[in-house]
Amino acid sequence: MHEGKRRPWTGEHPREECGVFGVYAPGQNVANLAYLGLYALQHRGQESAGMAVSDGTAVRLYKETGLVSEVFSEEILAGLPGHLAIGHVRYSTTGRSSVINAQPLLARCSKGTVAVAHNGNLVNADALRQELMDGGSVFQTSTDTEVILNLVARFAKEDLEGALAGAARRLAGAYALVAMGKDQLFGLRDPSGFRPLALGYLRGGYILASESCALANLGAEFVREVEPGEMVAIDRDGLRSRRGEPGGETLCVFEFIYFARPDTILGGRNVHQVRKDIGRQLAAEWEVEADVVIAAPDSGTSAAMGFAGAKGLPFDVGLIKNRYVGRTFIQPTQAGRDLGVRIKLNPVRDVIAGKRVVLIDDSIVRGTTSARTVRLLREAGAREVHLGVASPPYRHACYYGIDTSEKGELIAAGRTPAEIRKAIGADSLHYLSLPGLTRAVGRRPGSLCLACFNGEYPVPIPARPAGKYAFEEAGALELERARAD
Amino acid sequence: MHEGKRRPWTGEHPREECGVFGVYAPGQNVANLAYLGLYALQHRGQESAGMAVSDGTAVRLYKETGLVSEVFSEEILAGLPGHLAIGHVRYSTTGRSSVINAQPLLARCSKGTVAVAHNGNLVNADALRQELMDGGSVFQTSTDTEVILNLVARFAKEDLEGALAGAARRLAGAYALVAMGKDQLFGLRDPSGFRPLALGYLRGGYILASESCALANLGAEFVREVEPGEMVAIDRDGLRSRRGEPGGETLCVFEFIYFARPDTILGGRNVHQVRKDIGRQLAAEWEVEADVVIAAPDSGTSAAMGFAGAKGLPFDVGLIKNRYVGRTFIQPTQAGRDLGVRIKLNPVRDVIAGKRVVLIDDSIVRGTTSARTVRLLREAGAREVHLGVASPPYRHACYYGIDTSEKGELIAAGRTPAEIRKAIGADSLHYLSLPGLTRAVGRRPGSLCLACFNGEYPVPIPARPAGKYAFEEAGALELERARAD
Amino acid sequence: MHEGKRRPWTGEHPREECGVFGVYAPGQNVANLAYLGLYALQHRGQESAGMAVSDGTAVRLYKETGLVSEVFSEEILAGLPGHLAIGHVRYSTTGRSSVINAQPLLARCSKGTVAVAHNGNLVNADALRQELMDGGSVFQTSTDTEVILNLVARFAKEDLEGALAGAARRLAGAYALVAMGKDQLFGLRDPSGFRPLALGYLRGGYILASESCALANLGAEFVREVEPGEMVAIDRDGLRSRRGEPGGETLCVFEFIYFARPDTILGGRNVHQVRKDIGRQLAAEWEVEADVVIAAPDSGTSAAMGFAGAKGLPFDVGLIKNRYVGRTFIQPTQAGRDLGVRIKLNPVRDVIAGKRVVLIDDSIVRGTTSARTVRLLREAGAREVHLGVASPPYRHACYYGIDTSEKGELIAAGRTPAEIRKAIGADSLHYLSLPGLTRAVGRRPGSLCLACFNGEYPVPIPARPAGKYAFEEAGALELERARAD
Amino acid sequence: MHEGKRRPWTGEHPREECGVFGVYAPGQNVANLAYLGLYALQHRGQESAGMAVSDGTAVRLYKETGLVSEVFSEEILAGLPGHLAIGHVRYSTTGRSSVINAQPLLARCSKGTVAVAHNGNLVNADALRQELMDGGSVFQTSTDTEVILNLVARFAKEDLEGALAGAARRLAGAYALVAMGKDQLFGLRDPSGFRPLALGYLRGGYILASESCALANLGAEFVREVEPGEMVAIDRDGLRSRRGEPGGETLCVFEFIYFARPDTILGGRNVHQVRKDIGRQLAAEWEVEADVVIAAPDSGTSAAMGFAGAKGLPFDVGLIKNRYVGRTFIQPTQAGRDLGVRIKLNPVRDVIAGKRVVLIDDSIVRGTTSARTVRLLREAGAREVHLGVASPPYRHACYYGIDTSEKGELIAAGRTPAEIRKAIGADSLHYLSLPGLTRAVGRRPGSLCLACFNGEYPVPIPARPAGKYAFEEAGALELERARAD
Repeated sequence: MHEGKRRPWTGEHPREECGVFGVYAPGQNVANLAYLGLYALQHRGQESAGMAVSDGTAVRLYKETGLVSEVFSEEILAGLPGHLAIGHVRYSTTGRSSVINAQPLLARCSKGTVAVAHNGNLVNADALRQELMDGGSVFQTSTDTEVILNLVARFAKEDLEGALAGAARRLAGAYALVAMGKDQLFGLRDPSGFRPLALGYLRGGYILASESCALANLGAEFVREVEPGEMVAIDRDGLRSRRGEPGGETLCVFEFIYFARPDTILGGRNVHQVRKDIGRQLAAEWEVEADVVIAAPDSGTSAAMGFAGAKGLPFDVGLIKNRYVGRTFIQPTQAGRDLGVRIKLNPVRDVIAGKRVVLIDDSIVRGTTSARTVRLLREAGAREVHLGVASPPYRHACYYGIDTSEKGELIAAGRTPAEIRKAIGADSLHYLSLPGLTRAVGRRPGSLCLACFNGEYPVPIPARPAGKYAFEEAGALELERARAD
Repeated sequence: MHEGKRRPWTGEHPREECGVFGVYAPGQNVANLAYLGLYALQHRGQESAGMAVSDGTAVRLYKETGLVSEVFSEEILAGLPGHLAIGHVRYSTTGRSSVINAQPLLARCSKGTVAVAHNGNLVNADALRQELMDGGSVFQTSTDTEVILNLVARFAKEDLEGALAGAARRLAGAYALVAMGKDQLFGLRDPSGFRPLALGYLRGGYILASESCALANLGAEFVREVEPGEMVAIDRDGLRSRRGEPGGETLCVFEFIYFARPDTILGGRNVHQVRKDIGRQLAAEWEVEADVVIAAPDSGTSAAMGFAGAKGLPFDVGLIKNRYVGRTFIQPTQAGRDLGVRIKLNPVRDVIAGKRVVLIDDSIVRGTTSARTVRLLREAGAREVHLGVASPPYRHACYYGIDTSEKGELIAAGRTPAEIRKAIGADSLHYLSLPGLTRAVGRRPGSLCLACFNGEYPVPIPARPAGKYAFEEAGALELERARAD
Repeated sequence: MHEGKRRPWTGEHPREECGVFGVYAPGQNVANLAYLGLYALQHRGQESAGMAVSDGTAVRLYKETGLVSEVFSEEILAGLPGHLAIGHVRYSTTGRSSVINAQPLLARCSKGTVAVAHNGNLVNADALRQELMDGGSVFQTSTDTEVILNLVARFAKEDLEGALAGAARRLAGAYALVAMGKDQLFGLRDPSGFRPLALGYLRGGYILASESCALANLGAEFVREVEPGEMVAIDRDGLRSRRGEPGGETLCVFEFIYFARPDTILGGRNVHQVRKDIGRQLAAEWEVEADVVIAAPDSGTSAAMGFAGAKGLPFDVGLIKNRYVGRTFIQPTQAGRDLGVRIKLNPVRDVIAGKRVVLIDDSIVRGTTSARTVRLLREAGAREVHLGVASPPYRHACYYGIDTSEKGELIAAGRTPAEIRKAIGADSLHYLSLPGLTRAVGRRPGSLCLACFNGEYPVPIPARPAGKYAFEEAGALELERARAD
Repeated sequence: MHEGKRRPWTGEHPREECGVFGVYAPGQNVANLAYLGLYALQHRGQESAGMAVSDGTAVRLYKETGLVSEVFSEEILAGLPGHLAIGHVRYSTTGRSSVINAQPLLARCSKGTVAVAHNGNLVNADALRQELMDGGSVFQTSTDTEVILNLVARFAKEDLEGALAGAARRLAGAYALVAMGKDQLFGLRDPSGFRPLALGYLRGGYILASESCALANLGAEFVREVEPGEMVAIDRDGLRSRRGEPGGETLCVFEFIYFARPDTILGGRNVHQVRKDIGRQLAAEWEVEADVVIAAPDSGTSAAMGFAGAKGLPFDVGLIKNRYVGRTFIQPTQAGRDLGVRIKLNPVRDVIAGKRVVLIDDSIVRGTTSARTVRLLREAGAREVHLGVASPPYRHACYYGIDTSEKGELIAAGRTPAEIRKAIGADSLHYLSLPGLTRAVGRRPGSLCLACFNGEYPVPIPARPAGKYAFEEAGALELERARAD
């Protein structure tokens, strides 16, 4: 189960789920807009936030670990004048977080002053880094972003626009990228379009954002999505587009299932409505007798509502989520193994007791939280607990920007649904079918990345050694960090 | 309002003063239990948290501004050994908060070492303070709690238990109090029972908590509520009760409407179910044509579900609340007047657009947020917006522990519903009737404090001068505070 | 040996060595003056700093753990308007420090709003506290200051001035006190005059300060010392004095030996010159052959210069003190036992090597640092190390405000000078004689408190049990503290 | 001056850039040694501290703004295991400081993992940076260190040792450099030997440090100084040396005058003794009648002692320096223009009043503090004030790593001594002669950099435009910083 204030899955690669933002608005002071845009994307990353702002002459950068509302103050925003900005939010970790991996990355190179912010994961980052190092490049972080920046710097004869386009041709994997020089804003999306990137228009200026909800927040008009393989360049001459080779789009289906905010429009569809359709599809596939339908808050809510409506069952609030968990919450060891769930999730006994309960969750990754939730519901008096999962069994690691478990930690890897049901302790368990999922999402199966469910990776993943090497080296930097408050 | 430290209240909902917790559990280390109990009560106060813990020999105190999860660490809890504890969470303010007003208050006096934590508001605090000062007492804070402590210290011939009982007879107003000596835990509730206080049992120990949800969190058994006018004393001899004069209970109705957590049991009823009944009652009273019912998140959700069910209308998620607002969120001034709402509340356009929307909120205090929300829904394409309020017009200031506006700021004070509707900009507006409210709550009208709706104050409020005096003097302390990190 | 940034001796009583400041200057904003005054007194206490400021209407308080320069900012000073202020600096501890024991103490009582700051130690604090508790008083700290405040509050028929005078008659022990109401400043010194308190005049206003160096810092004129047993009251009517019973003054001799800043004038004599005279007296008493005289920095410098001059020996800088120790300095355990001294004190080998060295220190308390310093000098090549101590053997605990060791930890308690020399490892060791000390200080022996040297306590010390009780109870409060950044 | 981050220098003394430290000690855990070494070098830089530590497999880095004792805790040192480390302290600024410019710099490149820490200033940094950018390098900071690292990375066919040697041949200006790979420690000094670098030996391991005092602190044996133009490489095969072209050494004379700690041995001479010799030389050159000699604390002390001894005049402590200034000290504006000096320096009136005073300072840069000190002494009653300066007139900006004023701010630039005397308000003023300085230092004039006195720059300084460009660009990074406190 994923939670709203998401904690990282203990991943094998230091991969990112992030949000990016960009704005070009002549004559306006855009730091405030970037602040609000990042704030709307906060659900995509809570570890750090940052923005680079240019007034056409100087590019100023501010980034720090923490939430957008913690990192920026009015004074700091006032110190970032200019009409052109990019910003970034980075995913949260349980342990120490490091300002060195915060984005955007700002640097000087042959293209002048350049800032880059990135959402996704390159599958050839290690190979590119090695190639660049062989050519004399120096790497101070273990981020893909620094690889991209060094690649850009190598294009001797191109201007920044050409260098970015040239660099993009070398990148393999998932990326939604915003970049800027002193006077230009760029947005790029990988040819598979794994990660979303929306384009908006606001009072004579352009906005780029990982999700359309950031545009809505600013009162900006949604123009369209940046297309897979497209690069847009925005400057005083307006917006130009370069489109890459026509290739197949494979948008990450997990954006629909879990990542995106319910009010976001993705691929032309509202995510909340897609999730309700997913719930309806689950209802169509699953025969189950029950008295009440409840959601694993908050991520299962939309699907649970769709499910309940389709089944004609009452939807109710059976679990209350404590909103005050915070990043420093401690789990006193003496207090027993189930306390972790008990303090975050509180059953509404009156809704549960004596009932046959259907619990809808968006997905199951490791299964431990699901098992505890089922136990919690039984203790609250549920007569039966049936677990409906609004996605297929999650069986394969993601290499395109989601920080997931080792395959061995995925409860669905190598287990039948019956075994999973038993491990979780539910009276019954139903996963949405893969065809059902794509039908509910309303897209051609080929236009979605379903790798975590079916193991079919749209972009080939290189063999392990390189990856392992990258990780080990990255450890070198792990202690470099801002003082913990 | 009497308390000095109080900051201008600016939000749409009344703020609850505090939550209190107590535990007596021989042979157990209770700091962890107190931590979890306070954590479950966090919704009652986010400004500061504290606990006093006794091992029978020494009483140790730790309190600090911040959330429970921020204030306490494992190291701090480990430094608070003992089987007896009381704790407190205090309401949040927009500005600086002060550790000097944090609770519990720990002191030495003729009764030995005593700690006290308090939820409520005494209407005779100024008079008592003056009387005590005339007799030589010294006051270092402007809290009611310090008044109570000094009153206790004056009972020359009584032990702590007798002194608390004697002091309680002098107090007028609202209080739910937990107190402790080195070896005894006490719980007191005012004769009107304005503020709730639940009694629980856990593995040989007793627990006191403002709400039953804290008992559930610990896996404790709910025993009963401490009765209005009752004092319970818990020590090695078990639990003793002293009951005061039989008087009329007038429990604060706003606990049902807004304060209490939905999973709490109050006066024998689950709060979530009461709120659904309130929604149903609203449906019975209000003729309205609509396509969809949505809630003002999160406080209107239960009533909205009840309303939608009774009306046979679809309930949907029309507004997404940003969970990352934080205490330091800044509202860039340039960004326009409605941005405050826009960044906290995000409409799901697909749910709203073209629809006749019923928006259910639990109450309207100042009306500004309601007006902005209505405008937000219209901008999202709502054809009509009908505002249903799950309580009657809020017209009178509270003197029993709720931090609300001056009467002049209450939108319903001196306005007809038609005028309010117009001010808010809704197509129609319906307040729940007062009889409808008491019916839905399921209690005799006389057993509830309804003063904020009907101006009938169960305990008389003294004239203003004393209050003014207290406020002015209290200003003396306003800069004493912990360093703002 | 005492060091400039003094660490506490591990004391049995939570006693204070502090600095106090007061200013009354009609028409001026005095927070800045108080800031600078406290800054000049910083050597008397590094744990916390605070000030209360009155504009005649409201009294505002700000206090915090940390150095004066850390606690106050321009913004904070700007928030403390008024013409009347008292301030306090409190001694440093190695462990956690607590804002609850910071001063001034501000409270409301029968005398109105009163603030008090105190330097010294009452020997009857426990008895007074018990008496006051018996009468209904409540104590939230374990400070003497709170005892004084409660005593003041008990004087029913007196105004603040009369109540202070009445309270002073009940106090036994050492105190230099500043107090204030909304419109009056007071300064009191105990009848024995253990602790110093100077009176100054600046542009129509009066200033009180523990040491004259704070007056000089402000450009104020030194008027005189507040006399033992005197109380001065300063308000719009000017300065009034009440003198107590004529009694014998016994000023703490350690103010001359170590506490006071060298530029301070105490009892009419400049402290630096007194210390040089002490060094000369030591030279007269001690036959020693040497090549160079060095000081234990910084506290032995004045005496060493006097000694060298009298002996006709070269004075040189043989030990460099690291100025960056800071309060958080860690002493890596693996690095061996002498590292503590080695990193704080660095020998100048060229000055030391091959020489017969006289090392002058102001006093020896526990002897461990002295032993390490001697070893350090030998490692740096000293041929001989002779230790001259600018005071007699320190054999008795102080009960008048100095936080000293248990008697058992005093190296001179129960040891002959020969045994001490052996323990410290010096080639020879000479303590100044007691008659020599008083002669060099230039005062009648009877006018000095010499208790730590001769055990003759000018004010009787009560039996232990009360003291022990006080300590144990005080433990109750020890965890209450400001968040450790 | 070239570096971007530099803040306007406002103090009276030139600020030293940095201190560097390195240790290679097989079988030992060296983080503690690096901590103590950096602590001994703290006087060379108070802005930030950092160290990189290798256990042969991973290199871990920790750096932060603040003093060594603030930056590192036992926990952090424990997280830095290994036998090989380099460390750095960076100079202090008045304004905000930035972690991005903290050192060491750790990166991965074609030479593997490399860390570098640097003291000095390259005069061709801009040219090298531009050349490297033209070749595709990316710069994330404005430090020389990053230029060096990128240069190293470009040596395709060399191992780290060869690449460092190759890079060094391209560097012009001043540098004392420590660098490390996973298993090797390197120390380099520029051919002119502007900045010092000492080599020590400790229990089977080697140590490198900017000053010998850091060796003494660790109990290490001083072996020798790294020679100008030399590179030492230390690894499991022991110590190897590469010596560059024989060139003229021109050690910075200000190391003797002001920077180095008095107990340091530099060029074979103890710095304290050199300074005493300087004082003696000043005495020989200057006819002055006086009653007492005092020092501007602390930097004038050694010279003042030498001067007084040579003149047969008494040396005394006439000025007390407040040790608690701290980095956050505020200077209340209302308090008048001389308060800045008054609160930091306190005259001992008894030493000064009625006397003809000789005040010895090590140097005069801007003269403002000198003027205030003279005024302070007059106010304290000095009959005459004669200012002796232990160095020649400081007339020329430094380009080799000292952060001094623009030439226009140097009081001696374009002024005769008579004019300076008048500006400062002294009765007489005497600068040490340049021949006198070199004689006292005891070195050939040609072996010292005397550029700040005579304008003869041993290494040519490029024209300004490049410098200006670098500064402007670097502004891009100025807001990137760790959270202030």
